Amino acid sequence: MTYELYYWPSIQGRGEFVRLAMEEAGARYRDVAREQGNGNGIEAMMSLLESRSAKRPPFAPPILKAGSLLIAQTANILYFLGKRHDLAPQTQGGQLWVNQLQLTMADFVVEIHDTHHPVGGDLYYEDQKKEARRRTQEFLRMRLPKYLGHFEQILARNGRTSRYLTGAKLTYADLSLFQLVAGLNYAFPKAMAKAARKYRRVFGLHAKIQERPRIAAYLASPRRIPFNEDGIFRHYPELDR
Amino acid sequence: MTYELYYWPSIQGRGEFVRLAMEEAGARYRDVAREQGNGNGIEAMMSLLESRSAKRPPFAPPILKAGSLLIAQTANILYFLGKRHDLAPQTQGGQLWVNQLQLTMADFVVEIHDTHHPVGGDLYYEDQKKEARRRTQEFLRMRLPKYLGHFEQILARNGRTSRYLTGAKLTYADLSLFQLVAGLNYAFPKAMAKAARKYRRVFGLHAKIQERPRIAAYLASPRRIPFNEDGIFRHYPELDR
Repeated sequence: MTYELYYWPSIQGRGEFVRLAMEEAGARYRDVAREQGNGNGIEAMMSLLESRSAKRPPFAPPILKAGSLLIAQTANILYFLGKRHDLAPQTQGGQLWVNQLQLTMADFVVEIHDTHHPVGGDLYYEDQKKEARRRTQEFLRMRLPKYLGHFEQILARNGRTSRYLTGAKLTYADLSLFQLVAGLNYAFPKAMAKAARKYRRVFGLHAKIQERPRIAAYLASPRRIPFNEDGIFRHYPELDR
Repeated sequence: MTYELYYWPSIQGRGEFVRLAMEEAGARYRDVAREQGNGNGIEAMMSLLESRSAKRPPFAPPILKAGSLLIAQTANILYFLGKRHDLAPQTQGGQLWVNQLQLTMADFVVEIHDTHHPVGGDLYYEDQKKEARRRTQEFLRMRLPKYLGHFEQILARNGRTSRYLTGAKLTYADLSLFQLVAGLNYAFPKAMAKAARKYRRVFGLHAKIQERPRIAAYLASPRRIPFNEDGIFRHYPELDR
């Protein structure tokens, strides 16, 4: 089966967590909104979003078509992919734990996004710069250490032989944590340079994931959209004190 | 088995979504942080949160202890409870769909919370009133209709015989949508009085859930904490234009 991913074509965004899981799994997928030609492109995604007949309409991208299933919400898609591609534990307890980690990262993503959009996603950054400065200050002071500290603690408790968040075996939560560090490095290079000295295991995991053959090949390919100032992780020097 | 819920004792908050599922299921549970006596109360919750030995430490409440499992993240807890208590469909596709709805409601909850805390949860409302006014204005203009419209559309597509979000049978997503409407009615009575005329199915679902025997008994009991200005849904008249 070839998966069909529907996501905004010019940003990594939340779609990237799904892409990374499919890339690591070596799964076949089409990135439909980025493809040219009839029935593809952003129009294909919009017609899915605006369909008046879908029984299970998605609220927002990313959306994954897997056979007859239409699945939305990043953590939900990853839960599905994780089981199918051995990117999650076999036990119920293990699956709930990975899902829990992913949902905590989803909360983190919202907070990262809202540093530049504290008033609303339907307004431009330029229209909320003042509020963004205050929110980012709070984020860097309180939230970034809280989240990074949480994942550092988990890695620390796993012991030496367990290199990944849930133990000795890679899961999609590790790929997502890689992406969070990559994005934060882009958005807040100064704050993250400091953080790297404190959260060594988190940064170590990022480095390790980056070198996995399939991930390395993906990152070097044109399939990886560069970070930019339209996505979740934006570099506005005025925010990165 | 008696579940143990750990959540802030003086607010409904995110814990309420878990309480509603357990109440509807008739499950036995302890609301540990609200109980008096040795080993109970808020201290019990804090020691769970601050435990240095937990292999799967929660980031934040709510937390559910179910036998040897320690589960956090609201949607994750509900996924677990839904399967065990027949509050979710039997099929994988159905379970993913309910989880998807719940995750969209989790996003909605963050946005509702952030109307009064747009700068940061570690600051008082009084310290971000100006920003809260702008954010709420955007929320009521753009986001409230988008979310309510989404659930209205889903209910409309189900047809006449299917009274619930996923069809003819109640799931935990219906209980959560009830709670969202209840909370929004408390926080934004003016805006919701208008919305009631437009999103009739969503408000109809709220009314129906409210009358379910176990839910009605729960709402009338002291177990239901009243809404107040410390939770997610806060009534600040200056925000409800």
